[in-house]
Amino acid sequence: MNTVNSPTPAMTEAPARHEYWMARAVELARRGRGPTAPNPCVGAVLVRDGQEVAHGWHERFGGPHAERRCLAHAREQGVDPSRCTLYVTLEPCNHHGKTPPCTEAVLEAGIPEVVVGALDPNPVAQGGAERLEQAGVRIRTRVLEQQCLDLIRDFRLWQSTDRAYCILKMAATLDGRIAARSGRPEPISSPESFSDVHRLRGLAQAVLVGGSTFLGDDPSLTCRLADMDQPTGSTAPSLYDQQLINDEQPYAVVLTSRLPGADCELQLIRKRPRQTIFWTTEQAAASETARALEDIGVRVWALPQQGPTLQIQEGLRRLRQELNGHYLLCEGGGQLATNMLEQGAADEFVLYLAPRFLGDAQAAPLGAGRHCETMAQAMDLRLGRCEPSGPDLKLTYYPPDTSGAD
Amino acid sequence: MNTVNSPTPAMTEAPARHEYWMARAVELARRGRGPTAPNPCVGAVLVRDGQEVAHGWHERFGGPHAERRCLAHAREQGVDPSRCTLYVTLEPCNHHGKTPPCTEAVLEAGIPEVVVGALDPNPVAQGGAERLEQAGVRIRTRVLEQQCLDLIRDFRLWQSTDRAYCILKMAATLDGRIAARSGRPEPISSPESFSDVHRLRGLAQAVLVGGSTFLGDDPSLTCRLADMDQPTGSTAPSLYDQQLINDEQPYAVVLTSRLPGADCELQLIRKRPRQTIFWTTEQAAASETARALEDIGVRVWALPQQGPTLQIQEGLRRLRQELNGHYLLCEGGGQLATNMLEQGAADEFVLYLAPRFLGDAQAAPLGAGRHCETMAQAMDLRLGRCEPSGPDLKLTYYPPDTSGAD
Repeated sequence: MNTVNSPTPAMTEAPARHEYWMARAVELARRGRGPTAPNPCVGAVLVRDGQEVAHGWHERFGGPHAERRCLAHAREQGVDPSRCTLYVTLEPCNHHGKTPPCTEAVLEAGIPEVVVGALDPNPVAQGGAERLEQAGVRIRTRVLEQQCLDLIRDFRLWQSTDRAYCILKMAATLDGRIAARSGRPEPISSPESFSDVHRLRGLAQAVLVGGSTFLGDDPSLTCRLADMDQPTGSTAPSLYDQQLINDEQPYAVVLTSRLPGADCELQLIRKRPRQTIFWTTEQAAASETARALEDIGVRVWALPQQGPTLQIQEGLRRLRQELNGHYLLCEGGGQLATNMLEQGAADEFVLYLAPRFLGDAQAAPLGAGRHCETMAQAMDLRLGRCEPSGPDLKLTYYPPDTSGAD
Repeated sequence: MNTVNSPTPAMTEAPARHEYWMARAVELARRGRGPTAPNPCVGAVLVRDGQEVAHGWHERFGGPHAERRCLAHAREQGVDPSRCTLYVTLEPCNHHGKTPPCTEAVLEAGIPEVVVGALDPNPVAQGGAERLEQAGVRIRTRVLEQQCLDLIRDFRLWQSTDRAYCILKMAATLDGRIAARSGRPEPISSPESFSDVHRLRGLAQAVLVGGSTFLGDDPSLTCRLADMDQPTGSTAPSLYDQQLINDEQPYAVVLTSRLPGADCELQLIRKRPRQTIFWTTEQAAASETARALEDIGVRVWALPQQGPTLQIQEGLRRLRQELNGHYLLCEGGGQLATNMLEQGAADEFVLYLAPRFLGDAQAAPLGAGRHCETMAQAMDLRLGRCEPSGPDLKLTYYPPDTSGAD
């Protein structure tokens, strides 16, 4: 696959060079996604004479920050940081939290130049760039700022709201179909994308599907990453190797106004009742069926309604408050996906676009449930990332950021 | 936008370095697309000590080949080619055609190393790499071979068939909609993509739409590139500046079984009858309506049918044979697009994917007309190129190559 925005190889121009290394730091940061929650993902690279000499990332909540990991790596390699430039995706912290301030570590190491992606949105931790500059360090900020802000969208949401961050994931053909006419669950995307979805399940504390997927597909919604071979040629970091998989399986959440019987044969009820949560109407939650489900360990949560539509934000709030769930992965179908986007409940939309064309207007659509007379009614998103995933494209879109950060 | 497969900046590894420069040669080659037909697009770069010192591409049919343009550029720059590596997307020709063999020019210039993308599929011209190697030049072939073969898919088709090369172009929302429920023509993609479509119209000798687009949208199907400002930030070469636009407007082709009256008010009939072609049934082509259309200069071509489906390949054949048309641009709608793919008549599928989500299952679909009970009935494609186009993605897909080249 050919892409356009490659850096020049000579790297003679400073802006392109800084962006190249910041992009590297972003990729490192992403390796920590999941275990670092509710801290931000951060990545760091030490560069000398156009070569990477050390790197690090924030690996898990409470562990050392990316800058300290990077400096420790430099020591291991026998590298003198006082001749290096440090690239870090987030402004080094300037406060004593679980770890001492990273600004101190940077100054002690004698690093003469620091390039920062995003400034710290956390009022307690911010001020690091200013501190370093006052101490005589050459500082450049806001390099690849949008990408570095995208990296901490989850963190920014956790700071500003009391709910879980929601990743909406869908797989579709080029013509926007998520299943053939029969509606049967069949693989659409590649094995590489399938593994990647299980990595997403591995980082999420809960996986959400709609009622018709629950009834039609009878899914188990477990993370089966440990059962899989790693895809060959995958560019994604191997969560499997790094043992970053959640030890526990994610909760299975089903959004539906019709609860199943506690004696049904569906997998979630039979095999995982204590890990299953229904998001449903007040009426259904007050029913005898709900009581019977609760008796076998199932959680039944009533969500407020707007007309017939269940308000998902309340479910995301309870997930975080009651179950310490930082990430919810929503896996559709099309109507639920559309709902999530419309309610502003999808903080990130990951689309695995398979290089296939179905051409059947009656096949299951990626989006459904709205009535749009004009294109002006379309919901606008912004493309954040575009990556190959085997023969597929993995596209990450973000909704407009109302916080003004975008 | 973040992409994954960037080259390393240090470029210490030869394969990555060779691929980087070949990718540059591919981009140069694409600047000649259109005017070079029915010759292949070729691009060339001279590199010394990790720096580009000269470049060239085949600009127009009958003009100097890319290697000669590159060497001329080197002379202008005062560069000594005997210290350089030449990257060229297609094996240098080894025969006297309109120009003397490029192998001779390479040898005369004393170039010590040549890196070739694709070997020449033309039996008359091939053997250049072998000739150079025998003369002592270091040769490396098949670097970025797939991309270099994709670059000459049109040329390979012209060599092996007697028909025009067809580019299917569509613009859609993320959920595969090409219009809202009203069906009114409204812009879906960005101004940058809109300009890019007119560049495609500028290289094509004919633009095809289906009958319902013809009746519903009343399009003029002209290339209005000259009326436009160049999009800012566009990475595409400016055909406008290079005056590579066809002087004449492309033919407008309408695929329909129902011909309009010669006295209708539709734009094509009123304003461009001599540039309008109907592809229709034998029956319609034999009608009085057809005679009346022909009287005002419209062409009416009967296509063979398979069941109700008109066979497009015959239209592509006549376009090339009778009107010297090398490229046809098909602009949908969804049913025609699906037809083109199903008939193997779409040699290249360009999809402008707008970062918007409509969520209306009744809105006009990107694909229609097939009945697929299972995903196994999906038509498989291969992603060839992925480029930003303003906020959109411009995705280029290719059907499986039955020639065995893929």
